[in-house]
Amino acid sequence: MSASTSYQPVLTEKSINPHVLNVEYAVRGELSNRANKYAELLASGDNEKVKKENGIRFDSVVTANIGNPQQQPYLAQKPLTFWRQVAALTEYPDLLENKSGTLSDLFPSDARARAEQILHDVGSVGAYSHSKGASSIRKHVAQYIEERDGHPSDPELIYLTAGASAGVQLLLSVVVSGPEVGVMIPIPQYPLYSAALAFNNCHAVRYELDADDDWAVDVAAMGRTVDEERAKGVDVRALVVINPGNPTGSCLTEANIQDILKLAHEKRLVVMADEVYQRNIYHPDQRPFISFKKVLRDFGKSGNAEEMELANQVELVSFHSISKGVSGECGRRGGYFELTNMDPKVEAQVYKMASVNLCPPLQGQIGVDLLVRPPKEGEPSYALWKEETEGIHETLKKRSRKMADQFAKLPGVKCGEAQGALYLFPEITLPPKAIEAAKKEERKPDLYYCLRLLDATGICVVPGSGFGKQPGPNGECFLRTTVLAKETDEFIQRFGDFHKSFLKEFEG
Amino acid sequence: MSASTSYQPVLTEKSINPHVLNVEYAVRGELSNRANKYAELLASGDNEKVKKENGIRFDSVVTANIGNPQQQPYLAQKPLTFWRQVAALTEYPDLLENKSGTLSDLFPSDARARAEQILHDVGSVGAYSHSKGASSIRKHVAQYIEERDGHPSDPELIYLTAGASAGVQLLLSVVVSGPEVGVMIPIPQYPLYSAALAFNNCHAVRYELDADDDWAVDVAAMGRTVDEERAKGVDVRALVVINPGNPTGSCLTEANIQDILKLAHEKRLVVMADEVYQRNIYHPDQRPFISFKKVLRDFGKSGNAEEMELANQVELVSFHSISKGVSGECGRRGGYFELTNMDPKVEAQVYKMASVNLCPPLQGQIGVDLLVRPPKEGEPSYALWKEETEGIHETLKKRSRKMADQFAKLPGVKCGEAQGALYLFPEITLPPKAIEAAKKEERKPDLYYCLRLLDATGICVVPGSGFGKQPGPNGECFLRTTVLAKETDEFIQRFGDFHKSFLKEFEG
Repeated sequence: MSASTSYQPVLTEKSINPHVLNVEYAVRGELSNRANKYAELLASGDNEKVKKENGIRFDSVVTANIGNPQQQPYLAQKPLTFWRQVAALTEYPDLLENKSGTLSDLFPSDARARAEQILHDVGSVGAYSHSKGASSIRKHVAQYIEERDGHPSDPELIYLTAGASAGVQLLLSVVVSGPEVGVMIPIPQYPLYSAALAFNNCHAVRYELDADDDWAVDVAAMGRTVDEERAKGVDVRALVVINPGNPTGSCLTEANIQDILKLAHEKRLVVMADEVYQRNIYHPDQRPFISFKKVLRDFGKSGNAEEMELANQVELVSFHSISKGVSGECGRRGGYFELTNMDPKVEAQVYKMASVNLCPPLQGQIGVDLLVRPPKEGEPSYALWKEETEGIHETLKKRSRKMADQFAKLPGVKCGEAQGALYLFPEITLPPKAIEAAKKEERKPDLYYCLRLLDATGICVVPGSGFGKQPGPNGECFLRTTVLAKETDEFIQRFGDFHKSFLKEFEG
Repeated sequence: MSASTSYQPVLTEKSINPHVLNVEYAVRGELSNRANKYAELLASGDNEKVKKENGIRFDSVVTANIGNPQQQPYLAQKPLTFWRQVAALTEYPDLLENKSGTLSDLFPSDARARAEQILHDVGSVGAYSHSKGASSIRKHVAQYIEERDGHPSDPELIYLTAGASAGVQLLLSVVVSGPEVGVMIPIPQYPLYSAALAFNNCHAVRYELDADDDWAVDVAAMGRTVDEERAKGVDVRALVVINPGNPTGSCLTEANIQDILKLAHEKRLVVMADEVYQRNIYHPDQRPFISFKKVLRDFGKSGNAEEMELANQVELVSFHSISKGVSGECGRRGGYFELTNMDPKVEAQVYKMASVNLCPPLQGQIGVDLLVRPPKEGEPSYALWKEETEGIHETLKKRSRKMADQFAKLPGVKCGEAQGALYLFPEITLPPKAIEAAKKEERKPDLYYCLRLLDATGICVVPGSGFGKQPGPNGECFLRTTVLAKETDEFIQRFGDFHKSFLKEFEG
C-alpha cells in the first residue's frame, strides 16, 4: 500500500489541546511505565530465563509508587469481608433468596439486610442512579459527617463521585473561569492538582509546607503569597489543602486549620479540603484528624462576631474516598464531596455538570455506604469487621514506623515518622557525582536515583519533584514511598542495599 | 448570627467558568427534575393522600427520558444471569472456594472459570488496574473487534472507560485546542456532544439528518458545511456520527458510511463513531450494523489507490458501551474506545490523560469482558444466556414496533419504525393555540408539550429541542421516548389519552 506523502494527520502534538500537553502526572509516568514493562516481562514466562535475557536483577516489581493496597501479588491487602459480602449480594440478588444452609453461613444477616436496603433504594446496580448518587447513601454520608463533626450536614449538598479525583476535577472545572485564575496548592502536593490546573490552563500558586515543622502550613507566608500573586494580576480564588498530607504524611493541628480558614475568609478563598486519609491516623491522641468542616462550623459558636460570620461565609468543598483508609477499595472508584456555604446557583451548575457524567459507578457508591455505615456493636458482622479493620490499621502503623526508623538509619537519609496517610517522604542527600551523572542523562537527580533504584531492585517509588518538591542545591532530594509493601523487612533490605551501593559508586 | 453585608462569595454565576454556564443537558434538566420530584412525593407515603395533597393525577412516574433499562420499578429489565454471577464471584472470591452443594448449583463452572480468569489478571476488584484497563480485557475487546470486522485490532489502542460518555469527553478534551475549533455533530444529536463542546468552548458545527430518508447523512451537504465554516475561520477538525442513531433509531447503510469516510479523508476530519447501540438492531437482514472501523479498513482491499491510502489515514475513534445492547448495565459505568490511525504521540497524550483518572471502575471493566466474550455454545451458561439475551432483544423489538405503530395512529403524529437503538423520535404537529400557550410561558412548544404530558400522566420524555431539533414553523415538534416501558399498552394508552385531550384543549 503506497503511503500518501501529502496527507497530514489532523491530530498531532502541534494541533491538539496545548493544555493537555502541559499536564504532568508523575505517579504514573516514565518510572511507572518502566516498572510495568518489568512486571510484564517477569509475568511472561520462565522467570530465570526472562531475567537472564533482559538483564533483570530482581524477581518481582514492588509498586510502592501508588497507594493501591489490594494490588496483587506484592501488597495484597485483603478486602473487608463485610464489604465484599454486601457487594456480592447486590450484584447477584438471587443469593438473597437462599436463606438457609451454606449461603446463610456465608452471608450473615446484617450483610443481607444491608444489601436489601441498598437494592430497595437503587433498584439494581445495573441502573443509573440519581446523578448526585443514590439518595439513601447521601443521607448516610450526611449522618456520618454529623456524627463526626457535631454539626448538621445536608444530603442535597453531598455528591457521590467516582473517587475523590473525579470530584476534584469536577470542582476545579467550575472554579477556574480563565487563565488569570490562580489556585493555591501545597508543595509537596499530590500531582492530581497540578495536572488538573495545567489542564484547566490556570495558575498553580504554590505554598511551601514546612518540612522542619511536621509539614505544617505557614499561614502568614501563604497570605503574603496571595497578595504578591494578586499584585501580579493573578485572580487567586481557591486553596487546596491535603490533610492528612500526601505525600508528607502530616496531620494538621486544629490551630493551623483555624488560621487557614481565617486567611481564606480574609482573602476570599474557596477552600478545597482533600481529606481522603482521614481514617489513616497513627497517633490520634497527639494528632487527631479534625475536619475543615468541623473547624469552620465551630467558629459559629465562638462568640466572636467576625468568626461567627466566617463560619457561614467561607466556601468549603470537602473530599473523601473509599480508596484509602483501611478499606483500600481503589478499583471500585467511590468517594464523595460536600459543599458548604456554596451559592445555590453555583451548586446548581455543579449538579448540571454531575448530570452530564450520568452517575458514579454503583459499586463505588455502595462502597461509600459501607465506609460511612460500618457494622455496629452487637451486629453479627461486627467482630470480624473490627478484627479486620484494626488489623489493617495496626499493620499500616507498624510498617510506617518500622520503615521510617530504617530509612532514618541509612546514611544521608532523613525520615520523620508519619502522623497519617499511607506514605513516607524521606529526604536523601545525593553525592555531587550522582548529581553529575543525572545531569549527563538530562534527568533530575531524584528521578535518576529512583530509576536506578527500580533497575537495581524492582522497587518503584516517586521522586519528590513529581510532587513539586524540587531537589535542593546541595543534593537534597525527596522521594515518596507507600508503606503498603507486605514484606517490609525485605523491602527495606533491598532498598538499603541499593542505597549503600549507590552512595559507594558515587562517593568522593 | 449576624450576616456580614460586605462579604461576597467567591463563586457566583458571574465568577465561575462561563463555559460551564453554557452547557445544556436536556436528558436531565427541568423535565427530569420535575419527574424526580413527583417520584419522590409518590414514594414518600400514602399514595392516595400524597396525590390529593399535591394534585398529582397519576400513580407512578415513567422515566422514558433516559435509556436506563434496569431502572425499578417501571422498566425493570432483568440483568443477565451470567453477568451477575461472574460479578458476584469477583466481588467475593470466597464463593469460589465452595465447590459443591448449593453454591455449585448457583454458580455454573463457566461463571467460576471466568471469575477466576479475571481475578488472575486484576488481582482484586478493589485494586486500581492499568489506566487503560486490565490488559486481558483489552485483549478480549481486540478479539471481539477482529471477529466482528475481519480486520486486526491492537489491545494497546483500546481504552476501557467509565461508560462511553467518559471516553467521549476525554477525546474531545484532547481534540479541542481552542475556541476556533469546530466539531461536527448530527442534528438531532445526543446532548452529551453539545454539552461537551460547550464546556470545551468550541464550535458545534451542525449537520442535519434527513428525516425523510431514514435519518441518513447527506454527505454532500455536510461537505458544503465544512467549506462554509472554514471560510468563516472555524477550524473544523472532527466529525461525530452516532450509529445506530440516538435519538433517531436509524442505522446507516454501508454506502453512507463509505461516503462519510471519503469526505473525512478529503476534508481532513477525525471521525468519532459513537456505536453504543451496535447490538440493538431490529432488521439485521435489511439494515445490519456495520462498524466504521470495518468500512474504513475494507477500503484497504479496494484496489483503488486513493481508497487504500484512506484506510490507513483517516483518524477514527470508535466508542462502545455496556449500558445499552441487551445488557443495559448503565450503573456499572463500563465501555471502551478504539483508536485507529492515530499519531502515536497523540495516543501517548490520551494515555496520560487516562492516567490522571487512575482507572475505570473494575466492575465496569468486567462488564466489558462479559459483553465481548459471552458464553459459547456447549458451555453450561450458554442456554440461559441465549434465552435471556434473545428474550430481551425480541421484547425491545416488539415494543419498538408496537409503540411506533400506535404513535403513528394518533392524530397529528408521524412516527417511523426504528431500525435500531432504544428510542422512537415521533414528530408531533401542535395546534397554533398550543404554540401560543407555550409562548406565554416563555417555553419552546415541544418542552411545553412534554411538561404538560408529565403533569398529566407521569410520563417523562425529552423534547426534540433537547437534541438540537427545533420546532418547525408550522408547529412541527419532535420528542424522544425510550421503548423500555414494561407496560407498553398502558404507556400508549396514557400517552394517547393525554395527546387527544391536549389537541382538544387547543383546537381551532
